[in-house]
Amino acid sequence: MNNPLLLALALAFALPFFSSLLSLSHPLDPLTPNEINQIQHIIQNSNLGSLPNLTFHFVDIAEPDKSDVIRWLDSKSQPKPTKIKPPARQAKAVVRAGGKTYELVLDLATNSIVSNHVYTGHGYPPLSFMELFQASKLPLKYSKFIDSIVSRGLNISEVSCIPMTAGWYGETVTTRILRVNCFYRGGSVNVFARPIEGINLLVDVDTMRITSYSDRFRAPLPKSEGTDFRSKKFAENSIITYNISGPGFKIDGHNVRWANWEFHLSFDARAGVTISTASVLDPVTKNFRMVLYRGHVSETFVPYMDPTTEWYYRTFMDIGEFGFGRSADTLQPAIDCPASALFLDGYVAGGDGKAQKMANVICVFERYSGDVGMRHTEINVPGRVIRSGEPEISLVVRMVATVGNYDYILDWEFKQSGSIKVGVDLTGILEMKATEQIYSDGKTGNTYGTLVTENAVAVNHDHFLTYYLDLDVDGNRNSFVKAKLQTARVPPSANPPSPRRSYWTVVKETAKTESQGRVRVGAEPAELLVVNPNKRTRLGNQIGYRLITGQPVSSLLSDYDYPQIRAGYTKYQVWVTAYNKSERWAGGFYADRSRGEDGLSIWAWKNRAIENRDIVVWYTVGLHHNPCQEDFPIMSTIHDGFELRPANFFERNPMFKQD
Amino acid sequence: MNNPLLLALALAFALPFFSSLLSLSHPLDPLTPNEINQIQHIIQNSNLGSLPNLTFHFVDIAEPDKSDVIRWLDSKSQPKPTKIKPPARQAKAVVRAGGKTYELVLDLATNSIVSNHVYTGHGYPPLSFMELFQASKLPLKYSKFIDSIVSRGLNISEVSCIPMTAGWYGETVTTRILRVNCFYRGGSVNVFARPIEGINLLVDVDTMRITSYSDRFRAPLPKSEGTDFRSKKFAENSIITYNISGPGFKIDGHNVRWANWEFHLSFDARAGVTISTASVLDPVTKNFRMVLYRGHVSETFVPYMDPTTEWYYRTFMDIGEFGFGRSADTLQPAIDCPASALFLDGYVAGGDGKAQKMANVICVFERYSGDVGMRHTEINVPGRVIRSGEPEISLVVRMVATVGNYDYILDWEFKQSGSIKVGVDLTGILEMKATEQIYSDGKTGNTYGTLVTENAVAVNHDHFLTYYLDLDVDGNRNSFVKAKLQTARVPPSANPPSPRRSYWTVVKETAKTESQGRVRVGAEPAELLVVNPNKRTRLGNQIGYRLITGQPVSSLLSDYDYPQIRAGYTKYQVWVTAYNKSERWAGGFYADRSRGEDGLSIWAWKNRAIENRDIVVWYTVGLHHNPCQEDFPIMSTIHDGFELRPANFFERNPMFKQD
Repeated sequence: MNNPLLLALALAFALPFFSSLLSLSHPLDPLTPNEINQIQHIIQNSNLGSLPNLTFHFVDIAEPDKSDVIRWLDSKSQPKPTKIKPPARQAKAVVRAGGKTYELVLDLATNSIVSNHVYTGHGYPPLSFMELFQASKLPLKYSKFIDSIVSRGLNISEVSCIPMTAGWYGETVTTRILRVNCFYRGGSVNVFARPIEGINLLVDVDTMRITSYSDRFRAPLPKSEGTDFRSKKFAENSIITYNISGPGFKIDGHNVRWANWEFHLSFDARAGVTISTASVLDPVTKNFRMVLYRGHVSETFVPYMDPTTEWYYRTFMDIGEFGFGRSADTLQPAIDCPASALFLDGYVAGGDGKAQKMANVICVFERYSGDVGMRHTEINVPGRVIRSGEPEISLVVRMVATVGNYDYILDWEFKQSGSIKVGVDLTGILEMKATEQIYSDGKTGNTYGTLVTENAVAVNHDHFLTYYLDLDVDGNRNSFVKAKLQTARVPPSANPPSPRRSYWTVVKETAKTESQGRVRVGAEPAELLVVNPNKRTRLGNQIGYRLITGQPVSSLLSDYDYPQIRAGYTKYQVWVTAYNKSERWAGGFYADRSRGEDGLSIWAWKNRAIENRDIVVWYTVGLHHNPCQEDFPIMSTIHDGFELRPANFFERNPMFKQD
Repeated sequence: MNNPLLLALALAFALPFFSSLLSLSHPLDPLTPNEINQIQHIIQNSNLGSLPNLTFHFVDIAEPDKSDVIRWLDSKSQPKPTKIKPPARQAKAVVRAGGKTYELVLDLATNSIVSNHVYTGHGYPPLSFMELFQASKLPLKYSKFIDSIVSRGLNISEVSCIPMTAGWYGETVTTRILRVNCFYRGGSVNVFARPIEGINLLVDVDTMRITSYSDRFRAPLPKSEGTDFRSKKFAENSIITYNISGPGFKIDGHNVRWANWEFHLSFDARAGVTISTASVLDPVTKNFRMVLYRGHVSETFVPYMDPTTEWYYRTFMDIGEFGFGRSADTLQPAIDCPASALFLDGYVAGGDGKAQKMANVICVFERYSGDVGMRHTEINVPGRVIRSGEPEISLVVRMVATVGNYDYILDWEFKQSGSIKVGVDLTGILEMKATEQIYSDGKTGNTYGTLVTENAVAVNHDHFLTYYLDLDVDGNRNSFVKAKLQTARVPPSANPPSPRRSYWTVVKETAKTESQGRVRVGAEPAELLVVNPNKRTRLGNQIGYRLITGQPVSSLLSDYDYPQIRAGYTKYQVWVTAYNKSERWAGGFYADRSRGEDGLSIWAWKNRAIENRDIVVWYTVGLHHNPCQEDFPIMSTIHDGFELRPANFFERNPMFKQD
């Protein structure tokens, strides 16, 4: 390094990694842009760089061991913080090169590849945005497709094509393919409103070539009337002044402090927003107590209910196939979040491995909706009317994932009452199918959906968003308890006799193994609790958090249907599994063209012990969607979600100053 | 009338009634204070005035026939409004006099009693506030009770007593009684925190005397530590600036106009807030189309799950026994509603029949919570990123009913998407039972609840709030449809063959009679629809509204338990009945000490036809409440509700300007 230029270059390259290590705010901090570029550099300069067609499909931190993270956190919270070295900063990358899938672990401090393994199982890593983009452009230069367009009397310059994942339908040999479907804009911005029906077009992704084409039939193009989904109604007429000065939040690195909450907020290409080490202040001990070690959307499953040739394969697993972070959208102030929100950027690796900034993909704001946090009026103290209460002010962390036609608004809401509420709002544009039909015959069974505009049927489908919830309720040894409410009869022999004949009582069943941790929500009246069986309140109640479920939902597909085999976990809305660092993706890590050999329902077959263990709860927010005309040209949000609510976690309502 | 003074008095008395008739904004307008006083005057001056102990228990408009109301409304909405005389302004009053219950109908224009009928069935009208107040004071001067207090070493001046309804437990003869329970304030404002256990005290309401007294046992008084439910945390630390200038609302008399909604808002002592003739603007025809003819809370049922002597009877029916309007609380700006909300008064008749103003019992405000109304980003138009959306701005009408220890926050929320959302938030103070127990033994079956503070068990209970929803979806002939989602197998013989094996399809079942209109929510995947079978959209879809249900809940009491016999309707969460003007109160009109001979489950036994008829939907918002320590000393709100969402009611999303 006698050459000063080389030295300068080396320093310029090296220093940011050092500084990023020094400024590490938390062992679960997402990769910085410098770290992403460093990873690209290491891999590009390895033997993989010399293989043809090196593409990057997954680049994230290699999650440190939970015990190391906890030890590091604990050391920081001591009155006199001991200096503990943070866990080694490692990264995991999955790349494709020479037609193979490589799993790499990299050490960022030593600038080296720690392990390099060729994945030989079924399924493929998430598609890169570049691959999707390239595949979408192929038909426009493909002569058979151009002929199809011309023969329909359409103009190729007004055609947009959208690649869709192909699923798996029992093929013994699979390749990385996409099915590309095309739409006629005809001057409209609503691409999905006018599908060009009847064409089947397959792209081999590794070679980026069209490998199969057929033009089976034509359906009339749906008319273009009223398809524009843009609206200016409010922007024209409304003024929103919305400034909440609640307790105020502080963000230090990736650590967020607000009111009685402290949590880590990160972003990656696959899950999008991840909340880690969320802890709540105990008003008695003044210590923060852990609630949620890690939480994020683990997988989605969106099967359409049309078995015909052009539609049967539409059974998307957005997280594993595309990535929710990769699909995160820039948030619009005053539309997607209050204008006064704090907007944060995210960073992901592109298909070329280089860092890409995703601007304003997260917003954080204090919410006040006019709702009441708590209140009471007491008229039974003589001569006085005692009225009291507090408005509900909460903290919201939001992202929006736009996966093709649909937009998912994903909220983590923290409450001063100790609750964490997770909200999912669905909006966006329906997937429609062009049809000869102009008027509905009033039946629904034969069209696989609802006629929402002339010549367009919005096809029936489901949305399942499965959350990974590594709850560590006041420590990491927890149990899952079904507190069943059961009718009890008052015995005639009761002494003194009771005029009542019945009441309900709580019968608690602790799930011993994973097979007992599955729940079909709504099947029976029961509270679902995650408790710490080793700790009790001062009064002796079991310390816990309640899972308050949303709409009951489970997949209606046959157990033996291929999409259901791949997303087997959607048959139950709640699962509880033994913690295993490698088990984070409910539909399996390699979800694209997966065969159901990895994922939540497979792990749970092990039927591991889950009593007084480190456990993970999986909860599915879901919706069967039989569309209606109001969903066109864009659907108003429909909301669902769930709540994690303290249940004998605190000595009393934590909204109160304690004595 | 030669005496000028008499003439002046007569005019002073007569004119307000005239003016109120002239200023009638809607035939369903609630009684004005003048009208209430007029009713009192008419009754007081009738033969009833000479009977002993005349008390007023129900004073409301006598609801005009629906057809007359609709005709009057229609005449107003003509381009050239025809002058139709509003339906005759009549009132209904239920009074007690000489130990009997009189049902009266009065004509306000002629100042006369139209009908006068002695009610001889079982059950009694709502208790008046004066009766409850008087009963609460009786123990404090009752020597045996004073002895009990003294013998417990307590100071009678720190005792508050609260009357509770007694229910019915198979007695063949009933009288109007209250069971009075007493609490030791000991300097605290939280009356309910220290129950004086072991005493049974009965008050005969008509004679207002204690008729039975026993002091069975003593339990330690729960300690007074930390029972104060008042909090100043936010008032101290927070500033909320919350000004929404959305479309803006106008109130003309009792008619509310906001965005695309028009509805009538009234208030009475029994239901509290009632929403009537809610209609939504059709963006195509520019006409208002009816959705909800009338909606309000019809009855509540709050049974406690403790069969012992001092607790078994606590099975409240708040609407019929006390009245939600009668229990409406003055709303606190910046706590119960945004400070910028419009606050409205209500008027009820007191026990003496005279008008009482209830100040600021309703608030109306435009809500913006930071949520998204709809949004989409389109990246598939070449060279453009098209981002659009609208924030969610809705209109909220709110009241709070404080019935003893509990506070119910009751919202009607109107959305520009065409939805009506009904929200219920529960907060307030738990009913607690003093106990010897200091520490929980970790079991729950034997204590009938949860130890929430030393020596106090918060007793298990349910909340059921049943809504009367007289939906008239685009006209008053409607049907109730269960759109069941059923798994369909793809036949192996499908041509072309499909790789899929299953999908779901919609099988619609129209309820023919009332027995088919009952639903246990959550039992099977189904959308619940109220449709107008006589109308279709231009595209041919059945015009309708969807009932999106909340938490599945139904009563767990035995069918043969007395409280369940009285509230039989709580076994199903949804009922649909044929419209009958007299059928509004799900638990029966005379709910106090009722025997289950009147009410929803009884009417539905008639099994009337409900297909293509004027129908009423009854939906129960409910919660089984197994308390936890966080619910003490006051519980943070817990939310549930339901949504009425257009389903092929509009040609497309009404948020859009139509072509």
